[in-house]
Amino acid sequence: MSEALEFAPSSAALLEPYLPPASSQSTVSKPFVTLTFATSLDSSLSLAPGVRTRLSGPRSKAMTHYLRSRHSAILIGINTMLADDPGLNCRISGASSQPRPIIIDPHLRWTPKRSDKVLQISRDGQGLAPIVLTAVQAGKWPENSVSVLTEHGGKLIHVEPKKATSSGGSRFDWHDILAVLSQEGLSSLMVEGGAQIINSLLDSQYHSLVDSVIVTIAPTWLGEGGVVVSPARAHDEQGVPIPAARLSDVKWHPFGEDVVLCGRLDKK
Amino acid sequence: MSEALEFAPSSAALLEPYLPPASSQSTVSKPFVTLTFATSLDSSLSLAPGVRTRLSGPRSKAMTHYLRSRHSAILIGINTMLADDPGLNCRISGASSQPRPIIIDPHLRWTPKRSDKVLQISRDGQGLAPIVLTAVQAGKWPENSVSVLTEHGGKLIHVEPKKATSSGGSRFDWHDILAVLSQEGLSSLMVEGGAQIINSLLDSQYHSLVDSVIVTIAPTWLGEGGVVVSPARAHDEQGVPIPAARLSDVKWHPFGEDVVLCGRLDKK
Repeated sequence: MSEALEFAPSSAALLEPYLPPASSQSTVSKPFVTLTFATSLDSSLSLAPGVRTRLSGPRSKAMTHYLRSRHSAILIGINTMLADDPGLNCRISGASSQPRPIIIDPHLRWTPKRSDKVLQISRDGQGLAPIVLTAVQAGKWPENSVSVLTEHGGKLIHVEPKKATSSGGSRFDWHDILAVLSQEGLSSLMVEGGAQIINSLLDSQYHSLVDSVIVTIAPTWLGEGGVVVSPARAHDEQGVPIPAARLSDVKWHPFGEDVVLCGRLDKK
Repeated sequence: MSEALEFAPSSAALLEPYLPPASSQSTVSKPFVTLTFATSLDSSLSLAPGVRTRLSGPRSKAMTHYLRSRHSAILIGINTMLADDPGLNCRISGASSQPRPIIIDPHLRWTPKRSDKVLQISRDGQGLAPIVLTAVQAGKWPENSVSVLTEHGGKLIHVEPKKATSSGGSRFDWHDILAVLSQEGLSSLMVEGGAQIINSLLDSQYHSLVDSVIVTIAPTWLGEGGVVVSPARAHDEQGVPIPAARLSDVKWHPFGEDVVLCGRLDKK
């Protein structure tokens, strides 16, 4: 078992204005959404696709687990799931409950196995099994995936994809994702990555869905070829390029060598 | 005439450890080099090549002019010169001297005209005329460029290019640039941009030449297609990608909505 992490109450207090209300309401129309990730100065999450890159210091890791303790669900994309085999639990000392992992996997590229870390952890009672959102119809789900997930307390949920991507894949509408999570009784969601998930949520059509943004920046340039956070280009009515997203209510908190940026997305 | 800018002494004090010594020494082997620029969260200097994008707030502008007051020279690349028609002077209130503008223009793409802002300002006694570093041999300099520059107190200097770029252009070695500036009696240099200049100086072979890095980050994502600061990919002895550059002695100073990052490049 991994050891518990400590996050100083004084640091937690700095984040409080950007976190979901502590009392979860049963009648929320959409979950409170916090977008959080760590990048280099050149906005890279990692050196290359599938490469896990340690960017930020130990305080940043403790912060991530503290943030998980304050949300009822945490969300990642399928690329991150397959690349990292993440635990997706909360290891902060004194956490009273575990967040529900949500995995966005339109084409069911993940085949759940008992040896996957997230399932091991749920068997050990140290975390919850994931809910997998997929564009694949229920009749076509692999039997074994369903039984492995169900055994651990997780499940698959069909979501109708709204958009075809240029590469012929399907992509969900974030309104639909959040509607499903509301139905599941999840009142707050921490969106963790990877780049495709983050960039899609930073698209201007979804700014109204995001309640808080918490970005850790490490004083490093990873260099060309990294996995970059940069949303799609935005234009004004005349077709002139404009900034894609801007934060307001901004606070910068130095955390060791890193900085933590808290803010809210300007609604347009 | 533009009005003078004010920069709070308390802010200046925060930058002091990262600035060249106030007393200029006559026997320096190379100028003190400060690399400074402002980016978005996705590491863009501007929305597109040739587009001037206001990223940071008024305090950041005052800081730039304060930094100029603390250096004997300021350097930009030819793309920035042609795109911005910059003044390249110091407008901080009470500045006792003006920095010498240095323009890196290997192929003499700039044709100096009396209407260029930097030359107007030097005629008005509000700044100095530039020194242009070029790969073009002295015998091939356009007569009119020489006379316009000379009239204002500027000049052209030939620097032997060391490297051919992939596009067939020529590029200087930073050691050669700094050697020329030392010969000119310039003891400190502020490198301001644009992206090509910054990325080349962030290449690991030049880290030992850079004394300080001061980066302003605005809480905005410009989106895909911007002019990006991200140095060339670096590899270890086994050919595995590694971070291209890392800062130490790091300080983060919130400046209004922006943050100012001060640090020194780790030498490898």
